[in-house]
Amino acid sequence: MSLAPEISEKLRLSFGRQSMMATFGAEIDEIALGQVTLRAAINDGCKQQHGFAHAALTFGLGDSAAGYSALSVMPLEAEVLTSEMKIHLLAPAQGEYLEAVGKVIKPGKRLVIVQAEVFAVANDSRTQVALMTGTMVPLLPR
Amino acid sequence: MSLAPEISEKLRLSFGRQSMMATFGAEIDEIALGQVTLRAAINDGCKQQHGFAHAALTFGLGDSAAGYSALSVMPLEAEVLTSEMKIHLLAPAQGEYLEAVGKVIKPGKRLVIVQAEVFAVANDSRTQVALMTGTMVPLLPR
Amino acid sequence: MSLAPEISEKLRLSFGRQSMMATFGAEIDEIALGQVTLRAAINDGCKQQHGFAHAALTFGLGDSAAGYSALSVMPLEAEVLTSEMKIHLLAPAQGEYLEAVGKVIKPGKRLVIVQAEVFAVANDSRTQVALMTGTMVPLLPR
Amino acid sequence: MSLAPEISEKLRLSFGRQSMMATFGAEIDEIALGQVTLRAAINDGCKQQHGFAHAALTFGLGDSAAGYSALSVMPLEAEVLTSEMKIHLLAPAQGEYLEAVGKVIKPGKRLVIVQAEVFAVANDSRTQVALMTGTMVPLLPR
Repeated sequence: MSLAPEISEKLRLSFGRQSMMATFGAEIDEIALGQVTLRAAINDGCKQQHGFAHAALTFGLGDSAAGYSALSVMPLEAEVLTSEMKIHLLAPAQGEYLEAVGKVIKPGKRLVIVQAEVFAVANDSRTQVALMTGTMVPLLPR
Repeated sequence: MSLAPEISEKLRLSFGRQSMMATFGAEIDEIALGQVTLRAAINDGCKQQHGFAHAALTFGLGDSAAGYSALSVMPLEAEVLTSEMKIHLLAPAQGEYLEAVGKVIKPGKRLVIVQAEVFAVANDSRTQVALMTGTMVPLLPR
Repeated sequence: MSLAPEISEKLRLSFGRQSMMATFGAEIDEIALGQVTLRAAINDGCKQQHGFAHAALTFGLGDSAAGYSALSVMPLEAEVLTSEMKIHLLAPAQGEYLEAVGKVIKPGKRLVIVQAEVFAVANDSRTQVALMTGTMVPLLPR
Repeated sequence: MSLAPEISEKLRLSFGRQSMMATFGAEIDEIALGQVTLRAAINDGCKQQHGFAHAALTFGLGDSAAGYSALSVMPLEAEVLTSEMKIHLLAPAQGEYLEAVGKVIKPGKRLVIVQAEVFAVANDSRTQVALMTGTMVPLLPR
């Protein structure tokens, strides 16, 4: 099943309203039904104390990718909120940019269970730096 | 038991090297043995799509507070890395600033289990917006 | 606010229908509004390979205590399901019995965020062996 | 790379020492390097209040499968402890038996990050009922 164009448009508009994504320099890479990929350059303003990308960037990108994957399977009028998220940091986040692939594990009316994998990408390398699982909640107008 | 001044100084130096904390406008509020409090204004560049502070800010502040609480109980030569962290988002993060209180649940040589509570603070209100638990790993020079 | 007797009765009936709790020899220790305490002896059939109580017992007791704490704040006709749960195992579970204290962190119509602390109790010692946080979902008849 | 026979034997002996696995009627289905599959019948003594397999069984089986997958990549003299584990319960656990597939996500000297997927199996159906991620700690003799 493919994604309706108005859902894709809704996601892009929502993403555009997240000023944190602009601060991170994040972009949408790909939107599909139940799977959304985001990316952000690892630049000078997003580091932790050892010079790697900060976990807040990894988390923020993965959380948004996961949230939008959930939103892609919800009704057009729905919004989405993260209820909880766990992140395993698997390797230092170094390279040119981070790529976060969010996807729906289990859709549902009241909860959508999601996963995100975050990769650090450099010239020829693509290293998984995080694995995340979480719970997204649809918000529907009354 | 109180915190050795050189440990406190080490934490401040480490915090100062995190460019993400500068991007967030975050500051150290208080350092004690096994407990560290950070804060950051909720400004225009850190919002999600509904106008609340982005989960990446909440997570980043809580993760750093928790990490530094762990570092405060480690040997002077140790560094610290987050291995995993779970966050429950309990309420919309709106107000003047976020305050994250990180503390050690269980110290250890190989792992330090930590918790963080994040609050959104406005004039007279202080609302808990997140509860986090996680695992910090000491890094020791060989 | 105190707990309505019919809610307390509902919890006891539900607990009585869990054959796993009988297999574990678990009992209800205390039911209050938003907080439920369970206990189970650490007997020969519930051990892991080092002779301590198995994490399945710790988890099962904590999950049930947390679930019933959530059920205690739900409408009388509701049932409850665990959606997700994280457990930190803090110390070996050894002693006479385990005591799990579940409580509501944040009530809600669609989700109830809960916590459980599990203790291993012996003669004069009471050691926290686990910290759990999770998400409970109310099930309502249509 | 295949699994050394003495590692496989070590896992079987360790599994045999877990009285909880005997109480659950659990068995080892398959041991490979970095991946272990366990199963247990869904019998009358392991139910929750709605008649499905209790989360303690699902958790216990998944935790053990994940722990043994970690042990399979550790040195022969190592033992393993679960430090933390998150479980998402995805569907009611009903059927003839549960099958838990544990595998190593990231090996390491101090921590091994693991995942487990638990399935409820009946005649011709195999439904994923849980997704787990966690942290295993090697214990080495001094």
